[in-house]
Amino acid sequence: MNEFSFIEYLKKTIRVPNRIPVGIGDDAAVLNIEKGKQLVVSTDAIVENVDFILKTSGRCLSLPAKRSNLRDRHAPKGLAMTALSPEKIGRKALAINLSDMAAMGAKPTAFVITIGKPSYITSRWLARFYKGLLKLAKQYRVSCVGGDFSRSKEFFANVTILGEVSSHHVVTRSGAMVGDWIAVTGTLGGSLLHHHYDFTPRISEGLFLAQHFTPTAMIDISDGLCQDLSHILKASGVGARLDLERIPVSADSKKMSHGNAKKALTRALSDGEDFELLMTVPPWQKMMLEKSWKKKFPSTPLTWIGKIEGKKPLIHWHFNQQPVPGPQLSQKGYAHF
Amino acid sequence: MNEFSFIEYLKKTIRVPNRIPVGIGDDAAVLNIEKGKQLVVSTDAIVENVDFILKTSGRCLSLPAKRSNLRDRHAPKGLAMTALSPEKIGRKALAINLSDMAAMGAKPTAFVITIGKPSYITSRWLARFYKGLLKLAKQYRVSCVGGDFSRSKEFFANVTILGEVSSHHVVTRSGAMVGDWIAVTGTLGGSLLHHHYDFTPRISEGLFLAQHFTPTAMIDISDGLCQDLSHILKASGVGARLDLERIPVSADSKKMSHGNAKKALTRALSDGEDFELLMTVPPWQKMMLEKSWKKKFPSTPLTWIGKIEGKKPLIHWHFNQQPVPGPQLSQKGYAHF
Repeated sequence: MNEFSFIEYLKKTIRVPNRIPVGIGDDAAVLNIEKGKQLVVSTDAIVENVDFILKTSGRCLSLPAKRSNLRDRHAPKGLAMTALSPEKIGRKALAINLSDMAAMGAKPTAFVITIGKPSYITSRWLARFYKGLLKLAKQYRVSCVGGDFSRSKEFFANVTILGEVSSHHVVTRSGAMVGDWIAVTGTLGGSLLHHHYDFTPRISEGLFLAQHFTPTAMIDISDGLCQDLSHILKASGVGARLDLERIPVSADSKKMSHGNAKKALTRALSDGEDFELLMTVPPWQKMMLEKSWKKKFPSTPLTWIGKIEGKKPLIHWHFNQQPVPGPQLSQKGYAHF
Repeated sequence: MNEFSFIEYLKKTIRVPNRIPVGIGDDAAVLNIEKGKQLVVSTDAIVENVDFILKTSGRCLSLPAKRSNLRDRHAPKGLAMTALSPEKIGRKALAINLSDMAAMGAKPTAFVITIGKPSYITSRWLARFYKGLLKLAKQYRVSCVGGDFSRSKEFFANVTILGEVSSHHVVTRSGAMVGDWIAVTGTLGGSLLHHHYDFTPRISEGLFLAQHFTPTAMIDISDGLCQDLSHILKASGVGARLDLERIPVSADSKKMSHGNAKKALTRALSDGEDFELLMTVPPWQKMMLEKSWKKKFPSTPLTWIGKIEGKKPLIHWHFNQQPVPGPQLSQKGYAHF
């Protein structure tokens, strides 16, 4: 199957809804934007040997190789390597982009995807990749409206996602204010076991927060809680107090740390790829949000982990109300190069 | 320089205009779309060893390696390899996307870019890449509004571009009708010499055509005239007659063919990366377009090369009014994998 017959295959596979006047197969796609909405755009790539490892035998082994220190020193034997199907890699390529939309309080609508295809990737493998990708796309009602193919030495998939948001609902990283509470969805750490590819993008949660409350800042945790909180602090020009005993440590983080609580906490702070929402909320909204959250999302925890304090973009660590030195992180998060 | 300090550098370098409420550095950018406009989106990547070759010594050698038959068999010695600066590679990464907007009759507004960065690419090299990219962006008034960085084994740059078009002005590939004239801008072939990186994206021409005329189909020539015309024919469900003596063969095509007219013509039909506009125009607009084109774009030829004929998506070749067999093309254009 060459590129053009594969595009034909995709055109047949992908149903483009009526609201998209021109879809796959032209020089560009054309989209209608709803009245009173703003356009939100974000891009995120996954790259072989960085975000996953492929085995050319047909079976895929995946590990976030970028977190190589986890693999080498901390991961229990036989756990770090998770056999990943092409469907799961396809799912992840879209899911990480949906997560960015969630962090803006935006509703994703459409995406384009560029594939870098090495010779050892078969059309069959690629069709399975698209199967995983398009299943998630259907679930979240986002349309694949175009893309590009290139040859490459290693596989990569770059998704650019488009979404809509009402201008008064958009949530950036830069609005956190002294006195705001800091909250996080779900539990953190140990994403390496399976969460990094099967996580649920927090689209509903992001939309709910943006439409019914006024979070002052929001980000999705991809690089690790510490690092992503630092992004908010720098963008907002504020500091934070974090209560270590409140950090929601995941069961996988504990599992990977063999019951060592300190190690598990460190993972929750720095592993990354949690794709949970980290936000700051005005103090007067805390109780109401807590109450309505439990009704709306009974199975997704929302945890208050600290407060915005001071003007320097630093994290002040507390444990049971006492200031403590910052935890020794094996790494402070992921640096992309 | 790590990723975050490089993003800081870019935030300072890139001025985001007021019409973009949220630019670089958040989870996503937010854009205002003008009233009565539709959003146009397209994505196109350049990949090392496919679209260019890098020399790690700091000097860059570039050739479209994908057209390896040109390099190996046809290119004059010492001509196939053109030393390309990082600025030129950066320029090309954006220019090929602008060309897609031109083909839709759209006005480009903003773009996001994903960089795959191997260890041998320095921050200094990347800064020069961005310099070339942003110079072209400024020229065409498109804003860089976000991106992603990843490590990778070979360098790649994937741009997703956004544009606007009035819904009654959008030009797709699928509207060509029997009786339409086929026209092409500029001259074709031999892009390997320099045109593939220093071409002028036909944005003004595309906008002019879409706003003042009603081209029934349009495409930019990236894969070669034959192949790109076939895309129009398939999408429109029509055939075409091409007049070989009318094809505007470029001086570079002749130069690369050492004066062999047949070879030069073959290049014009199949080399690709011309990034000229190929369009079909209703017969009653031909004279008026010809006249106003000469006034508006005196230095850019517009050449009538044939007509839409028949219902089968085939090209019928003519030379001086006589049917001739199709030319023997060394390749019919570029297949991406």
